[in-house]
Amino acid sequence: MIRIAIIGYGNLGRGVQTALRLQPDMTLVGIFTRRDPASLEVMDQAPTYALTDLDRMLDQIDVAILCGGSATDLPTMTPNIARKLSVVDSYDNHSTIPEHFERVNEAALAGGTVALISMGWDPGMFSVNRGVAEAILVEGQTYTFWGPGVSQGHSDAVRRIPGVLDARQYTLPVADAVERVRSGEAPELATREKHRRDCYVVLAEDADADAVREAIVTMPGYFADYDTEVHFVDQATLERDHAGLPHGGHVIRSGRTDDATLQTIEYRLALESNPQFTGAILVAGSRAVHRMAQEGRSGAITVLDIPPTYLSSRPDAELRASLL
Amino acid sequence: MIRIAIIGYGNLGRGVQTALRLQPDMTLVGIFTRRDPASLEVMDQAPTYALTDLDRMLDQIDVAILCGGSATDLPTMTPNIARKLSVVDSYDNHSTIPEHFERVNEAALAGGTVALISMGWDPGMFSVNRGVAEAILVEGQTYTFWGPGVSQGHSDAVRRIPGVLDARQYTLPVADAVERVRSGEAPELATREKHRRDCYVVLAEDADADAVREAIVTMPGYFADYDTEVHFVDQATLERDHAGLPHGGHVIRSGRTDDATLQTIEYRLALESNPQFTGAILVAGSRAVHRMAQEGRSGAITVLDIPPTYLSSRPDAELRASLL
Repeated sequence: MIRIAIIGYGNLGRGVQTALRLQPDMTLVGIFTRRDPASLEVMDQAPTYALTDLDRMLDQIDVAILCGGSATDLPTMTPNIARKLSVVDSYDNHSTIPEHFERVNEAALAGGTVALISMGWDPGMFSVNRGVAEAILVEGQTYTFWGPGVSQGHSDAVRRIPGVLDARQYTLPVADAVERVRSGEAPELATREKHRRDCYVVLAEDADADAVREAIVTMPGYFADYDTEVHFVDQATLERDHAGLPHGGHVIRSGRTDDATLQTIEYRLALESNPQFTGAILVAGSRAVHRMAQEGRSGAITVLDIPPTYLSSRPDAELRASLL
Repeated sequence: MIRIAIIGYGNLGRGVQTALRLQPDMTLVGIFTRRDPASLEVMDQAPTYALTDLDRMLDQIDVAILCGGSATDLPTMTPNIARKLSVVDSYDNHSTIPEHFERVNEAALAGGTVALISMGWDPGMFSVNRGVAEAILVEGQTYTFWGPGVSQGHSDAVRRIPGVLDARQYTLPVADAVERVRSGEAPELATREKHRRDCYVVLAEDADADAVREAIVTMPGYFADYDTEVHFVDQATLERDHAGLPHGGHVIRSGRTDDATLQTIEYRLALESNPQFTGAILVAGSRAVHRMAQEGRSGAITVLDIPPTYLSSRPDAELRASLL
């Protein structure tokens, strides 16, 4: 059995715990938190520990799955823990992944551990699909569409507007753009042509709806470059109809193997729960980390370094017989 | 530069040659054939050699891409050449892949070479996508749909019917079944419900169309379990409208991460040329073979053993920066 620790217990930590329930070859050692462990409401009566307990439990853990945030937690947490334990994180600040990789690589080499960073679906499975499609179709164009799905960052941005009590923002691919890309047209698409945004907003009693709508649709960096619909709802409706965290999207590459010959590769995810799906990917990744650590490897890796067999609990020969 | 030999020059060999044109890091040493090399009509004035010339040219070749057939060529050709050179083949007789793997593994270990077998899209990319989807969504169901595309085997079967001069058979996924699977319904589907078959047939002058149609739609193992449409056309129409070898399909896995939560992963290919696309995959695979051989590894591998970075001509750090 691969002995797993969950570090951090928000939506993603719960998603990892949910995924672990289905694994035949893994056991959950416990959930580690910077909060008071007694205060955590955990599923399945899992054991909880203070993060400061981790050091005395290192010999009970094979892989730590780090469920902190990319903004402030993971940049220090991943290298710190990778010095002591093999780890998986979901660091998703795309532009700073190379620096994160270098920091974590140094720590993992020093600790003799394997550290899988930026695991998930984007970065993660979408990255693999972009890379493999580009290796096969050398000449072509790759498009990534996200959604329909909830963007936490955009939801938070709406909630910070004066007069907004609560909000949920959905990112949606523009269906016509997806069809044009699928057809092999290889269109040039402006930001506005690829995605649109829908906001469900609960207003404070004295708020000016028109002013709030204007503040949303003109917000630079978040909404100004998109066509955005704003729907005002009451809190009960928001909680009833918009409580989930669905997401997904498409990676599509179309290219030509010769002048006359169009080839198209598409990878599509439709997720009812983003954190549960991401959790399931982190768990599969922890299996690859454990196998590489047992082989004596060390250092930082990404999903691009993982042979597919390493993600599975099934023996290689069985995978060959059933999948090929 | 990675020095590539193409062994065998049918549709697939031409597809490999076409793919090599786009590779920045590969060079074609030559095309090897069991036919008279002077008789080959090759593209780009590529050098041609008799297969018996291979032994004296081993030190000029890094990877041999074997473009023979799975029925009679590859079972002996792949182990024979793997004793001397690193190789890639597209062995696609699904049920005997484990035996082929063992035979080739023994030869490659003896020769100190790396031998990638069963590369392509199914077996190949579809296999990877089935495997990774099952590793992530442990509970769920996987469906593979093929087409729309030309099946060589079924086309040949129709051509063997008395009174048939020429024929082309298309396999098509049943759109309604694809939609049901995408929706997460996880239906039980009979053979007939998943795919249908369309035949375009050129009759001999005195042939009985009804008898030919009946012989096709009732043919056991090929058509009896499917809804099959038979269209009679003249030879000129067949050559004008049905000369291509398109193919493709879908791998769809839907599963639940908990009782309430449906997640769906789909991988889809739409190919205007099956042999050119398969050729492009074999070429990307030969890069992985060369890298593993340079690392000192030996033995048989499949696409399930290949880290995605190994398929690409770009440095790992550049892939991390651009794909993650």
